Amino acid sequence: MRILVLGGDGYCGWATALHLSQRGHDVGILDSLIRRDWDRQLKIASLTPICGIERRIARWHELTGHSIDLYVADMCNHEALETAMVRFAPDAVVHFGEQRSAPYSMIGRKEAVFTQVNNVVGTLNLLYVIHEKLPDCHLVKLGTMGEYGTPNIDIEEGYLTITHKGRTDTLLYPKQPGSYYHLSKVHDSHNIHFACRIWGLRATDLNQGVVYGVHTPETTMDRTLVNRLDYDGIFGTVLNRFCIQAAIGHPLTVYGRGGQCRGFLDIRDTVRCVELALLNPAKAGEFRVLNQFTEQFTVNDLAQKVRQAGTEMGLDVEIENVPNPRVEKEEHYYHAANTKLLELGLKPHCLSQSLLDSLLNVAIDYKDRVDENMIPPRVSWRSCAPVFQ
Amino acid sequence: MRILVLGGDGYCGWATALHLSQRGHDVGILDSLIRRDWDRQLKIASLTPICGIERRIARWHELTGHSIDLYVADMCNHEALETAMVRFAPDAVVHFGEQRSAPYSMIGRKEAVFTQVNNVVGTLNLLYVIHEKLPDCHLVKLGTMGEYGTPNIDIEEGYLTITHKGRTDTLLYPKQPGSYYHLSKVHDSHNIHFACRIWGLRATDLNQGVVYGVHTPETTMDRTLVNRLDYDGIFGTVLNRFCIQAAIGHPLTVYGRGGQCRGFLDIRDTVRCVELALLNPAKAGEFRVLNQFTEQFTVNDLAQKVRQAGTEMGLDVEIENVPNPRVEKEEHYYHAANTKLLELGLKPHCLSQSLLDSLLNVAIDYKDRVDENMIPPRVSWRSCAPVFQ
Repeated sequence: MRILVLGGDGYCGWATALHLSQRGHDVGILDSLIRRDWDRQLKIASLTPICGIERRIARWHELTGHSIDLYVADMCNHEALETAMVRFAPDAVVHFGEQRSAPYSMIGRKEAVFTQVNNVVGTLNLLYVIHEKLPDCHLVKLGTMGEYGTPNIDIEEGYLTITHKGRTDTLLYPKQPGSYYHLSKVHDSHNIHFACRIWGLRATDLNQGVVYGVHTPETTMDRTLVNRLDYDGIFGTVLNRFCIQAAIGHPLTVYGRGGQCRGFLDIRDTVRCVELALLNPAKAGEFRVLNQFTEQFTVNDLAQKVRQAGTEMGLDVEIENVPNPRVEKEEHYYHAANTKLLELGLKPHCLSQSLLDSLLNVAIDYKDRVDENMIPPRVSWRSCAPVFQ
Repeated sequence: MRILVLGGDGYCGWATALHLSQRGHDVGILDSLIRRDWDRQLKIASLTPICGIERRIARWHELTGHSIDLYVADMCNHEALETAMVRFAPDAVVHFGEQRSAPYSMIGRKEAVFTQVNNVVGTLNLLYVIHEKLPDCHLVKLGTMGEYGTPNIDIEEGYLTITHKGRTDTLLYPKQPGSYYHLSKVHDSHNIHFACRIWGLRATDLNQGVVYGVHTPETTMDRTLVNRLDYDGIFGTVLNRFCIQAAIGHPLTVYGRGGQCRGFLDIRDTVRCVELALLNPAKAGEFRVLNQFTEQFTVNDLAQKVRQAGTEMGLDVEIENVPNPRVEKEEHYYHAANTKLLELGLKPHCLSQSLLDSLLNVAIDYKDRVDENMIPPRVSWRSCAPVFQ
């Protein structure tokens, strides 16, 4: 299968591109490389030292014989996107090519507007290219479990069958996203759903949970292939951040009371979920939604697990409840369905002591690269962050 | 009350600004006047000859002694919007300032992207100005009944209480919008809902039905004040278009089978609904949704009514079913709640023979201004319209 990975230079995109390439697919990467600019602008960096995309791809070819075509292009540039898509002629596109940080989108007005325009316009451009040039191409779009928010009823996979005043319909599950970034994903979902309805496009929306881990079998083949690992207050996600905090002796920073519950998955499952979606494409006209996570944890659960693993490794791990920079429920009901990917064949890597050990060891290996100033949350949901103005 | 009407040069905005001014409020208008450019670009025009905004406002002052402040500014220009908002210091803003045509948004990729960026960014800018500069300002936002689509269950006002697997929550009503324009309004609704939740803004989303009529008591005081009336295939809405078709002896063009059912209201009720929302503001933190229409009709109902009224006036009115340029259900269940504005005091102007007579007479008065080529639908939902490329 010919697969173009949009955003293939990023944390999930890079690991996915290598996984699919290793499995024998013809893989291309399209990426604007803008994420590397944001790192510089925000004075943050991956814990792991990542190589340039050309070097990564060249090394992959040396090691495996597999080629990956590279298109450096911004999806918001329709002409560049269309040119690359027509040239590569993919059977499927995997769309990671968005601004993906909730805190980034909440820095201030400029970042909120940028996030929504960047994500919505890139996706609209992609829908038009598929409709006009590659109508049979399967769109696999990365959404997020954060689109659902924390309703007081069970979260289903994309749709909800509702009986109301004696009548029944199955409608898109009502969304309650928690940041301008999460909102951009909800906007995308609505736009893609519409494109499937009117143009007969085939699309799979992967509502992904919070990803943890850094290594996949492919990214560990060589240091040149190492994946990025974010620990800062803007791009760092909770479990990865906790492991790095433990490694450097920084208290684990639990936002608020820590009862926030979310779906999580190992990055080795991310790449496998995407592959399963590709191997079992949506039908023409179908907007299929799969919830892509393997386990639910609260923030407190994760802090306890990291403390335990760290303590067994001889680290002194403290937990600190810091004022919550976000506006969110800190104690709430949470129960989300995730059976569809299991039915397609996913064998989950559940969160284990060995994964935590591995992540803690990565953090210890690179702890001289940690800038502690980057760890505290710098962005408040309630007001624009003066530090960035 | 000091009220800034965003988009106050448009069909609903102009009538609303005059109504509020006449009722003694201090009214300002902010408008980019871009709609007048679109008329020129698309070679369409209002049936009624409309004066420039400065002349309209000057004449209004001469006739009534009421002043209306004018700000010519684009809401997508945050600085211009903020400057105007801070200078005028409104107690409430009424936000009509968006690209409001579904067919326009479906012309092609450029127009779809423009519609979503223009509407979403303008509204985001407004949310930030209110949050940062005028946090108590009541936002009255024009949404559309088209956000709901045509579900097989009753449409409620913004929210739906759902019981699922033994648990209950009240969530935003699931949306199924039918064009990239309608989608932009759904995006706005989600963004505003979020701003109310995190910043405590007060907002009312008026999900308006299809507006008909042209005159209000204020716009008929003088020919200089006449309101615009669109009959073309892009901006013309169904009932106004049918009356003009009847007046010039053109068959009434029913799209498809004509069983499409929607909510409708007289423009005299539009201005009153907005006033009622202003006089009864949403609470701090509240995202209130009111369905703003008075009656439901199918397209066939309206065609029959116009034929009957036209025949009684001696016109020879034919009805023609033309291929539906849209992708939509042509026979479907439709039952939408609209009690909240009635509870606030709305006394509806139901669709009557006399309104149809009045509209037909306006159409007859100006029939020499009609360009028949502008009437047929030129935009297809299924493919990009070559005529515009």
